[in-house]
This record gives sequence, structure tokens and C-alpha cells, in this order.
Amino acid sequence: MTRVVAKFGGTSVGTIERIRHAAGLVADAARRGETMTVVVSAMAGETDRILGLAGAFGSGLGDRETDVALAAGEQVSSALMALALREAGLEAQSFLGWQLPVITDGPPGASRIAGMDVAVLEAAIDAGIIPVVAGFQGITETGEVRTLGRGGTDLSAAALAAALQARCDIYTDVDGVYTTDPRVEPDARRLDTISHDEMLELAAQGAKVLQTRSVEFAKARGVPMRVLSSFLEAGASRGTDVVSEQAIAERRLVSGVAYARDQARIALHGASNRSDMAARCFASLAEAEVGVDMIVQAHARQPGTVTLEFSIAHRDLDRAQAVLEDAMTGVRISAETGLAKVSVVGAGLRQRADVARSLFAVLGDQDIAVKVLATSEIKISALIENDAVERAVRALHAAYGLDQV
Amino acid sequence: MTRVVAKFGGTSVGTIERIRHAAGLVADAARRGETMTVVVSAMAGETDRILGLAGAFGSGLGDRETDVALAAGEQVSSALMALALREAGLEAQSFLGWQLPVITDGPPGASRIAGMDVAVLEAAIDAGIIPVVAGFQGITETGEVRTLGRGGTDLSAAALAAALQARCDIYTDVDGVYTTDPRVEPDARRLDTISHDEMLELAAQGAKVLQTRSVEFAKARGVPMRVLSSFLEAGASRGTDVVSEQAIAERRLVSGVAYARDQARIALHGASNRSDMAARCFASLAEAEVGVDMIVQAHARQPGTVTLEFSIAHRDLDRAQAVLEDAMTGVRISAETGLAKVSVVGAGLRQRADVARSLFAVLGDQDIAVKVLATSEIKISALIENDAVERAVRALHAAYGLDQV
Repeated sequence: MTRVVAKFGGTSVGTIERIRHAAGLVADAARRGETMTVVVSAMAGETDRILGLAGAFGSGLGDRETDVALAAGEQVSSALMALALREAGLEAQSFLGWQLPVITDGPPGASRIAGMDVAVLEAAIDAGIIPVVAGFQGITETGEVRTLGRGGTDLSAAALAAALQARCDIYTDVDGVYTTDPRVEPDARRLDTISHDEMLELAAQGAKVLQTRSVEFAKARGVPMRVLSSFLEAGASRGTDVVSEQAIAERRLVSGVAYARDQARIALHGASNRSDMAARCFASLAEAEVGVDMIVQAHARQPGTVTLEFSIAHRDLDRAQAVLEDAMTGVRISAETGLAKVSVVGAGLRQRADVARSLFAVLGDQDIAVKVLATSEIKISALIENDAVERAVRALHAAYGLDQV
Repeated sequence: MTRVVAKFGGTSVGTIERIRHAAGLVADAARRGETMTVVVSAMAGETDRILGLAGAFGSGLGDRETDVALAAGEQVSSALMALALREAGLEAQSFLGWQLPVITDGPPGASRIAGMDVAVLEAAIDAGIIPVVAGFQGITETGEVRTLGRGGTDLSAAALAAALQARCDIYTDVDGVYTTDPRVEPDARRLDTISHDEMLELAAQGAKVLQTRSVEFAKARGVPMRVLSSFLEAGASRGTDVVSEQAIAERRLVSGVAYARDQARIALHGASNRSDMAARCFASLAEAEVGVDMIVQAHARQPGTVTLEFSIAHRDLDRAQAVLEDAMTGVRISAETGLAKVSVVGAGLRQRADVARSLFAVLGDQDIAVKVLATSEIKISALIENDAVERAVRALHAAYGLDQV
């Protein structure tokens, strides 16, 4: 019998009806002979509600007491899911982080899983009981409650799947991983399989299907994942298998086109080309928790100086400018907003050096200017105008044959 | 330094502002030199909200999963109270039932405290940290989450006070125990002291100040309690000390007048006077969880038969009639509604046999008919018309001199 850890996020357990529907999907899988363990997030909105309460006392993520309060969200939803499974005719029982235990280290609000003991889950499974584990939470070695940060329930699920030697089914609001966003390109196709690396790049480039940390964990531990819809009827969601690269039979040049709107570009002009300038710049941004994405350094017209350009999320722009003005005295700082990033992701890019050129050509045909270009081993990203995102996604999707079955 | 366990109920922690106010009261007590431990209920409305969610899956109190979900309520409020105390300049830390642990036995939803280990609390107190304990919850010997039922947080507080050899301060919405309900009798006076037994009778007769179980526990373990308002400013609430009878210096005949509206009277007519009739009647009601209060058995006109009368809460009437019609075939059952109970409570009643007679006289002067009368060692209750409650309370309050300082 295949062992499966099925993870349901906040939206999938957001209401009584959604919990009941999710329980039906688990019941269906159990009837098909899969040995199920369930992991749940807090009901949609609950985590933000609790963060709001803690925030009223000046506390946020990173505080032990905020973690205690936050963990209550998954406590409620795990109990409700156990009740819903029982209503569906199955034996089920909730398990909280401390009841396994899931042992964490790292700071409150952003802990990582250091280990877990699944003996009580194994015992439950042997007794024909479906364990429903409260995701997102664990305890320290000294018994303090900790949470795993955003996307923590995906990480709980991947770690449980590794410990139980199970497949990790992530139920979400989409029917798998698509070649691009179907709202932008109606011809987007669901992928039957995708490699962990491609999934990681798609997630990093804006596809919101899976959390990066859980895919990294799954890749490192060789856990097969499946992305499924929790909104379709049982059996109607085919899903996408996220597997090791070797396990993918058919080779594709490109697997998907991702995009992220509301990017900003910052340029530092006329600084000396001493290498410590870039270091100082990125250190100050890291300290302010500004994520820096595409980076380009170019020689400036004035000899001995350089222009350093990089993109960040627009929401971080004010914070970034403030720290840079402090840290980079004597350097002119300019910013451009209203930008977006489009990315082409595919394991096949490793073998094809000309993809960057063809990307320029495709966007050029559409009169879309590429402001910054960055490549990784299996990804090419271009910074363009926000307004051009949809045309760019559709043109790239067609140019790389993603609309062809 | 006096050790104090301060308990705040759902209304006292119902909003951010109320939690902040409660934290201020704790801070004030700490500044006065009291060594504080705090126990909290879930925020007002939270327990009912969670019960509603569990109820949607056909589960209620008495289910292990309902207990898991319910315990989340106190988890959130204990964390928030710790944050509020920190905001008030104190060191504080939340503790959940499993973190002590508080060990329970008995069924889910109505467990009792079998024991608790306060070593982690003693360590926190020694380190100058105010522990904030999530009330209402504990775990079984095998690590299952359990709740203590309605009023469970009062019980948590009393048990913690016993274990920590502390006084148990119950913060509530009234400024202590009054001679009667000030909304009915403006001349009602706050009592400085009351005995555990008197408090128990007042609570049982309708005064909603303290939960019976916690007072019983405090009496058995010799824990001094204090009832205080969480709504007044720090220092403004004088409160009432609930102490052993021996500790009360001034003797009073009567300490208070309590009342409970919406009672019903059931009469079973013309049954045989075999003693098993009453036994069968009350066994069937107990099974249906109908609480039976005042009981009178009288000889009926027809020789060899009796009339058995008793009062119940009006909300239980339909259920009571249904089970009695099943269980008591051949007996005519009648019911009267629109009734209320007034009770006079006082340790001094032990020595005064004529209090019943004077109660008849006082109510007779007011043309209030007594339908059923019942006495205990320190209490006399009369069943009267609902409409007459306020007049009866005021007349009894005056007749027993409770309005005199």
C-alpha cells in the first residue's frame, strides 16, 4: 500500500464545508488503498487574526508568545479535520507538534525542523487510525512551542513524508503545476511531472504553487511530491508529480513561464569599482530584510566607476532606499518602479546556450524592452514594464511550444 | 511576600483593552509586593465559537477532538496575557497544560484535575518571571488533551493556588460577593468575608460569582479565595474574602439572598407510595441530565398514593416531561412554569430554627405565595411566581437586616 502524507492549506480548510470536502478527498484516497496521514494549516485568516492580536501588544513573528498563540490555529483545524474524517466514516485522531514530538531549532516564528519522532503516528496507522497532524508547529528540546514561518505546513508535510517514507501530496487551489498562469494564458497546460529544481525555480520566480523550503527539503531527502487541487471532486484532480530529474522520462527544453509583478529597479551610479561597494550594499539590504533579485554590474562612462543595478519587490523600495542612503554615502541612487519579471524555467536550458538570445528576440518582436536580464542554470529572467507582462508571458509560452500537447 | 494566583475569566480577557487592563491589575499587585501567577480563560466568545465549529461535525463536549480544539482558546489568551504583562514592564511567560503538566482524569469535556507539577512555575517565579497558565486544560497520563468543563478555569486557579500555597484571587465582573443582586436591591452590600459553605450555597442558588467546583476544591484544600472586580481601576476593588468558617470573626444570621428565575415545577400525582417511584423518577431524570432541585413528597387525598413535586430549570422541562412519560407509566404528570426561586443563605441559620417561619411571614406580608419550600443546613429556598422575584428579594434583604452596615 502506498503511504501518503496529504497536506491541506488554510484555504482548503477555511470553512466547515471546505474541511468536509478535504475529508472526502482523504476518504477517497483511503478507499483506493492509500495509507493516509493528514497535515493541516490553520483555517484561512486565522493566522492573520492571531498575529493582529499579538501585534496589539507590540509583538510579532519572532516572539515566543506569538508562536504559542499562532500554534493554536493549527490545533483547532487538526481537531476539526479529525472530526470531519470521522464523519466521513474513517477513524482519525489529531496530533499536535508536542505530541509526536516535532523538535525544532532556530528562532521563534522561523524555526526549522531538527527532527521528529513518528512512533505515535506509526502506532496510529497500524491501528487503522488516520493521524491528523497540526502543521507549522513543533517544540524546542526544552519544550517551548515554536512555529516554522510562512509555508511551514508544507515543510511539516515534507518532513513527515520523509520520516514515514511516504509520498507528499500538497492539496492546493490549483490542479497541479501549469506551464504558466492560466489566467494569463488560457492555453497553459498542466504538467504531469516536473523536477524538484524546475519547481524551485518556478516558485522562486513567482509561481505560488509550492513553498520553496518544502521543495528543497523534498529534493534533499528524495521525497516524491504531488500537487493536487483540493477544490475538485475526488478523482477529478490529476495533479503534477514533483520528482527527481532522473525520474522524468520526457525531456523538455522549457517547462514553464513564471512572472512576478510589482518589481522595482535600483541603480547605484558612479561608485568606485572597489569590490567592497557591492558587498556593503547587499549587506545593508540583507540586514533590512530586503530580498535582492537580479543583479547587474556595468562599467559606467566615467572611468574607474561602475553602475550597480538590481531588482527588488516594490513593497521593499522605501526601506531599501532608506538603508542605502545611509550606507552608500557619495553614491547617486536612482530607482525605477512599475516593473515586472518574466522567467523561463526548464531543466533543458542547461544544454542550450541560445535561449537567452531567443528570449530577447521573442520580446523584441513584441516591442517589449528588456531592462535587466539574469540567468541561472535552468532559468532566464527578464525585467520588463508591468504593462507588458501578459503579452510577454503569452509570447514566450507560444515561442517555447508550451501550448502544444 | 504573599503568593497570589490571579484568575481572569473570558470577559476579563475578552478584548485587547480588557487584557491590557487585567495586566495592569497584576502589575499593581506585583508592585504591592505580591508574588503573582496568572491563570486565564479563553477570550469571551471563543469557546462558543470553537464549540460551534466542532458541532458542525456532530461533535460536542465529551469528544477528545473537541477538547483539543477548545484548549486552543486558552492557549491564545495565555500568550496574549504574557505579552500584555511584558508591555506593562514585567517579565512573563505563558504555560500550557501539558507544559507543567496538569494531569487530569475523567472524560473529555468534564475532566477533573488529578494532580499537577508546578516545578516549572516555581522555577519561573524564582527567576522573577510571572507565569501565565492556560486555564481549563490539562492532559491525561497518556498525553491526551483534556478540558475541565464549564468553570474549569476557576478550578485550575484553585488547584494552582493549592499547589503553590497561594491565595486564589478570582477577578470577575463584580466587586465581590454581595448580600444580593444590586440590580434588584440597590441597598445590597458587599461582604468583606464569607465562608466557603455560604459561598457554595449562594452559587448553587443562583449567584453567578464563583463556580461551585472551585469553591468546593478551595474548601477541601483550605485555599483562601478572594473575589475581585477586573473592571475597576487597580486598588479600587476591595473584594470579598472567601475563607473557612472559623476565620470569620463577626457572626451573621444571614449573609445573602440569591434568586434564580425560570424555574418549573413538576408534580407526579396519584402514584403508589412505594419508595421505588421516587427512585425511578430521579434515576430517569439523572440519565437525561436534568438537574432536580427542591423536592417535596406529600400524601395525596386518595389513600395509599402520594404526590411527588420537584423543581427544575425551565429549559429542561420538555426533556424532563419526555423521559418521565416514558418512565412513569400510569402516573399523571403536571407541570407549572413561570416560577422562580429565592433563597436565604447564612451560616447562622444552623442555630435558628425559626427562620423558615419568618420567611413565610415576610413573603406572606407581600402577598407572595410559597409553592414549594426546601431547607438545607445553611439555606432556605422558596419557589414563587417569577413576577414576584424582585419584591421577594427586597423584602427578605430588608427583613434579615442585610441593608444595615
